[in-house]
Order: sequence, then C-alpha cells, then structure tokens
Amino acid sequence: MMRTRPLKVALLGCGVVGSEVARIMTTHADDLTARIGAPVELAGVAVRRPDRVREGIAPELVTTDATALVKRGDIDVVVEVIGGIEPARSLITTAFEHGASVVSANKALLAQDGAALHAVAEQHGKDLYYEAAVAGAIPLIRPVRESLAGDKINRVMGIVNGTTNFILDKMDSTGAGYQEALDEATALGYAEADPTADVEGFDAAAKAAILAGIAFHTRVRLDDVYREGMTEVTAADFASAKEMGCTIKLLAICERAEDGASVTARVHPAMIPLSHPLASVRGAYNAVFVESDAAGQLMFYGPGAGGSPTASAVLGDLVAVCRNRLSGTTGPGESAYAALPVSPMGDVVTRYHISLDVADKPGVLAQVATVFAEHGVSIDTVRQSGKDGEASLVVVTHRASDAALTGTVEALRKLDTVRGVASIMRVEGE
Amino acid sequence: MMRTRPLKVALLGCGVVGSEVARIMTTHADDLTARIGAPVELAGVAVRRPDRVREGIAPELVTTDATALVKRGDIDVVVEVIGGIEPARSLITTAFEHGASVVSANKALLAQDGAALHAVAEQHGKDLYYEAAVAGAIPLIRPVRESLAGDKINRVMGIVNGTTNFILDKMDSTGAGYQEALDEATALGYAEADPTADVEGFDAAAKAAILAGIAFHTRVRLDDVYREGMTEVTAADFASAKEMGCTIKLLAICERAEDGASVTARVHPAMIPLSHPLASVRGAYNAVFVESDAAGQLMFYGPGAGGSPTASAVLGDLVAVCRNRLSGTTGPGESAYAALPVSPMGDVVTRYHISLDVADKPGVLAQVATVFAEHGVSIDTVRQSGKDGEASLVVVTHRASDAALTGTVEALRKLDTVRGVASIMRVEGE
Repeated sequence: MMRTRPLKVALLGCGVVGSEVARIMTTHADDLTARIGAPVELAGVAVRRPDRVREGIAPELVTTDATALVKRGDIDVVVEVIGGIEPARSLITTAFEHGASVVSANKALLAQDGAALHAVAEQHGKDLYYEAAVAGAIPLIRPVRESLAGDKINRVMGIVNGTTNFILDKMDSTGAGYQEALDEATALGYAEADPTADVEGFDAAAKAAILAGIAFHTRVRLDDVYREGMTEVTAADFASAKEMGCTIKLLAICERAEDGASVTARVHPAMIPLSHPLASVRGAYNAVFVESDAAGQLMFYGPGAGGSPTASAVLGDLVAVCRNRLSGTTGPGESAYAALPVSPMGDVVTRYHISLDVADKPGVLAQVATVFAEHGVSIDTVRQSGKDGEASLVVVTHRASDAALTGTVEALRKLDTVRGVASIMRVEGE
Repeated sequence: MMRTRPLKVALLGCGVVGSEVARIMTTHADDLTARIGAPVELAGVAVRRPDRVREGIAPELVTTDATALVKRGDIDVVVEVIGGIEPARSLITTAFEHGASVVSANKALLAQDGAALHAVAEQHGKDLYYEAAVAGAIPLIRPVRESLAGDKINRVMGIVNGTTNFILDKMDSTGAGYQEALDEATALGYAEADPTADVEGFDAAAKAAILAGIAFHTRVRLDDVYREGMTEVTAADFASAKEMGCTIKLLAICERAEDGASVTARVHPAMIPLSHPLASVRGAYNAVFVESDAAGQLMFYGPGAGGSPTASAVLGDLVAVCRNRLSGTTGPGESAYAALPVSPMGDVVTRYHISLDVADKPGVLAQVATVFAEHGVSIDTVRQSGKDGEASLVVVTHRASDAALTGTVEALRKLDTVRGVASIMRVEGE
C-alpha cells in the first residue's frame, strides 16, 4: 500500500549538483515515488543568491535562511550539497536535532568530522549517507560498506580526482609539461581557477580518509593521510615512466599492514605499469581498485565528478534514506570497531624510482650503491647515462619502507659526487 | 548494545562455495559479529554426501535432510548454494514459510522463478538477497538496485561468464580454434566436463534476465532473453575482428528502447572495439558496463566465479539480511512497477559484420548491395578479396534492426552468386 503523505526534502545549495538534484526530483518524480513507496516533495531550497533564476524550482521554495529551513521540524531528509566545513557542519547537526536524516556530498567535512557527525546521527536515530562524497557517481561507499561486509579488505587503491587525472593523462599523451596541461584543464572547465585542492592532493586525501575508514572499520581523519601533490611531476618523469613500461597517476592508497595490526592512507603521484587497469583510466574519469581476502581484485570505474553524476549518487542515497524512514529503521552507521592504529608514512613499504644527477667519474655507482645498502634498501635495477662529465643515474629499488628510502636519499644528497636528486617516485600496482 | 543470542544460519550445500562460506563464518566470526551487531552461528549444513570429511564443520551440524533443516523454525537465515531449480525452489519457499530470510547464489532459479520467490518472501515479510547470482564477487545487484535507485538506467552490457571469456581470450591471444581453447579451459578447471551451460550462453542469459529485471524495474524471465552461444566463433572471425580494430566477447546486453517504452535482453558473441574497456577484460574475469541518464558510464570489474569470490558476495548479503532482522525490517524487495514489455530480438538495433563466400565475377557486389538496400540495411564498408573464381565479401552495416538483417541474410542465401554466409557477427560498444 502506498503512503500518500509525501516525504519532505530540504535542499541546501543549488549549484551545479543541487540544481541537478532538484531537476531529477521533478522529472523522475513517478519513478522515485514507485521506488521509495511514497512521493518525495522538494520542501525548500537554501541558496546564497536568491535572485538567480532557477529553472523548474518554484520561487516560494527558495530561501537564504538555511538554518530556519533545517529547523522547520517537518523535513524528512536534508540534502547538503554546499560543501566546505561551515556552515555545512552546523546545518547537518541542526538537521539531525530537528528530526531529519541527511544525505551529503561533502568529502571535506566527512573526512574531518565524520565521526562526530555519525555520533549525532546515531544519537537521534537518523541516517547519514554520503555516496556522492567519494568518486562522484561511482557506487563505492555502498559496495565497500555493504557488499564487502562479510569480507576482509586489505587494500583500496584508486584514481579519485578527475582534474589531476585529466592533467596527467594530457601530459602522458602529448608530452606537455605540468603548467601547459593545467592551463588546458582550466580552459576546458576541468580545473578551478584556484586548483590547489585538486593538484596538491587535498581533495583526494579527503576521499582516502573516508575510504580507509569504511574499508578498515577504523576512524581515519584527513590529518592521518599522507599527502603529496602532483605539481612537481615533469615531462621527464613521464619519459622515465615510459622506459619502465609505466605511466604516472595520482593515487589514493589505503592499506592494511601485512601483519594486519595497523593501516596507512596516502595520496601521491606514482608510476604504475601500463598493464594495470588503472593505467588506462583516461581524462577526468575515476576508478578504484579494491583488494580483499575472499573477493580478490575488484574495480569500480566511472565519472568522478560533474553535476549529473554526483546528483545520481545523491539521489540513490535519497531513495535509501527515504525507504529507511518509511520502515522506521536506519541503514548501517559508522563502523569503527576495529580501531586499528594509523601508521605514519615512514612505515609504508613500496618500490621507488629515483633519478640522480651525478658526476661522471669512476666509482660513483659504487658509492651510491653503498648508501642504498647501508640503509637496507635493495636495488632492483640501475641505469646510467652521461656525457661531458655529467651523468644521470636511475635506480629502481625492491620493496623498502618509506623511512629507509628517506634516510637513503638524505645520505645520497651528502655525497660530493651526487649533484642533485632529480626525482623520487613510488612504483605501485605490480 | 550487543544482542547476545546468536542469529542462526542454515547452509544448504557445502561444495566449493558453501565450504568457503562456512570457513569464513568461522575464521571471521568476530568481524561478522561486530558488523552485524550480534553473533552468527552455523546451525546446520545440508549436504548430499554426509560421509565426506568437511574440515572445520562440526559433524553434528551435517544433515542430509535439507527440508527438516529449513523447517526447524529457529533458523534466521537460509543460505542456498545448491544451484539448479529443484530442490532449491521448494527449500527456499519452505524456508520463508518457516520464518527464515534467504540468501541465494542461484542464478538459474532467480531467472526462472524470481517473481514467485519474491512474492513468497514479501508475503512472509522476509528478505531474499542474491548478489552472488550475478558476476560472483562483483557488487552489481546492490549498486544497480540501490546506488542507482535515483537514476534511469538505459543499458547494461557485460561479460558475465568467466568460462567463455577465458576461451575467447585464449582464441584471441593465441589464434587457437574453439575446440583447442575449450580443451585448455577444461584442463585448467575453468570449464566443466559438460560446458553446455556456459558455451551455449544459458548461464549468461540467466544473469541477463536478473540484471534486466533490476535495471528496468520490469520482470524479465530467462525465456525473454535471446540467446546465442559462442561455439561457432572461429579463428577466422577473430582475424576479421582484428582487421576492424576489434576483439570478440560473449556479451549480455540489456537495453531500454530509444523511446523508453520497451526493453530487450540478449546474449551473443559480438565484436567490440579494442578501445572499449570490456575488450581488455582478460581470462576468467567478468566486467559489466552500466549506462544511465545521470551517472553516465559506470563499469564494475572483478572475478565472476570461484569459491572464495562467490562466498564474499554471499557473506555480504548475509550481513545485510542479519542486520535487517535485528532491526525488524527488510531490504528492497522486487521492484517491477515499470512493467515494460520485453521486445523480441527482431526489434534490437545494432551493427553487423557479415562474411560472404561469393563467386568471383563482375556484378556480384552490385547484386549483394541491392539486397541490403531492398531490406533497408545501410552499408558502412565493404571489403572484397578473392582468387581462382572464389571470393569473399565482408560487409559492415550501419545500425539496423535484427529483423531487417535476418531478412537480408535470407535473401542473400538465395542469390546464385552467394556460395555461403560464412559468419554474421554483431558489432557493439561503439
């Protein structure tokens, strides 16, 4: 039997995502009603600039007073697509206190204050859903949290930022430098006027924190995520990568330590083999690899941003939260029972590709190799090339800890014969 | 607060999947308890051969009387991994009648009798989950049914049978013929002694029926799915595909018609461009592309079969069903409100690659082209080669209906100058 009183939705924010959410709620109203078991009604839209024309949204629904909207008391679900920490955090908290469940696309907020928000939601018996916060339209939170709930996830590795993937893909395919590729991304609307959050890895780090938390049933905050941007990646790095049969991607990597007793989360550029499925993720697409004990290797691929794809994820959550309200229940809340320690970057074990500028004279290789050996870093291959007294040395190591590698590089810098460390890049996905 | 009375699970079947389910329930008991909110206990295991040693399963749990087990009345969840129609169907029905929810990996049964089983589940207020029935460990049912619940899915296209993908991949990479590749698949355990269900497309057709039903909110039964196996694919077909920059995959394709008023579901071998992500799915892996209005193109990739991966999917469902029981609710049941008609194969529109053996004399091409034109099938390219009075003609068409193509081919066969139709293959994913 279909309930006739509609579920009331308050929309906070009506930009590129919010306007798509409102549009689809209108155009697909019948489908949403059938799938939820009751109609959903847009009960209010909080915006900053009420004078902008918003096609398809009745003017009387629009308000600049978001707080009053979430305090109304008759709102079933608040959809938060404002972004940023405040006022989003206060509005979400107030929404729970006034009886609403919340669907959010806010990765920064979830990564910083997810635990506190989950606690408020639970205290009030409400849902907090946020599929859209990680990798846009790609179903990732739900599969990791629910489909793999009977499995043990050991690793999540993905391309979770479309802007930087567009830039790196452009550099790879055209040989362009970083600035040139960034300029093109900006001109095409893939990069914002201030691209810092993307190119310095802040956006990806927030997503890594959320993914690590869900995958390992452990609280992982943004501050726990090691972060290295991709502004230093050069055309020369891509040339080196090609020689190794690799390309370069900005990766978010969440790993369980081999002994299972701790986890790490990090974002940095890395070389990955061309044969790895993540290597062929083009343009602004996202893709995430998940490795677990029983399921093995899974990959999820799709558009990681954009109004429509993000709205698709928001609406999927909206349907679930509405269904939960109708049946008087809530979905899975925060699961942090494992409470594993998050280890520092120094504990991460991987391979490295190091380019050194060295003096072109006998004995240099022996000196360099000795430094690696003294720090317990085993060398896989060395390639030497040079002329006119200058030479370059490319060293690829076996697996070693980040701490050991850092110590090695510090010692290398002190050698008279090493003129400079041109680049250090991790090698993943082998 | 943690409930202490354990949830009781009855396992029907203890083969390659069932034994993995039992093993993980034991080894990961603490994690499952934390994620569910109560312990789960293996309360009974129904098998055909009780005398086989089953490591880690207490002998007193083993029974040959599956019916008595599901009738016990104290069982919370029945996990059915027997496969086939009977006795699985009766056991699942009896389980619902005696108060249990059901997790099943049974694609054949779901594709044939899903609607009836859903009805019994709903009548008794119980859950019927079956993530493991389609594409093994790959989360697909839950993302399509829940994550995309606010979106409109237009197309699902995938490689959903690992055995046939292994065989086709082998033919592609080594130039082997079908029989040789099948023999290798059998020797390596990828193909069963009787490979009919796989190579004739029955297994993939069952999955297509389930996927189409969920994607389009419409009942689609196995009988509604057009099915063509891949036993006729030859090394020559692969050579032709290569010339077009394509490879050949056995695809399950579920489509909404362009006017949105009907759907189709089909399984057949098809050429797809090497640039398409499905083209690089190797070995026994599965991958499914989902195209929707808002989300755009999504892909889900992973192991499509095997004991551990399938057990991972079963246990994810088990956790969800147990959580639902604890909170006194049920998850989404069957959603068939759209009730769109399923159109016959003749209505499917795609491109075709047709190889003809023809007489090598003037006027043949004109005759052939006339037949295509008379049936309204527009030709994209023609390639002619020949010697000693025999020639071959390869025609690639623009998009045309299957009915028009079938009419064309019938007329071609009647031409004196056409000695034979060597192969007809659809071209997808462009």
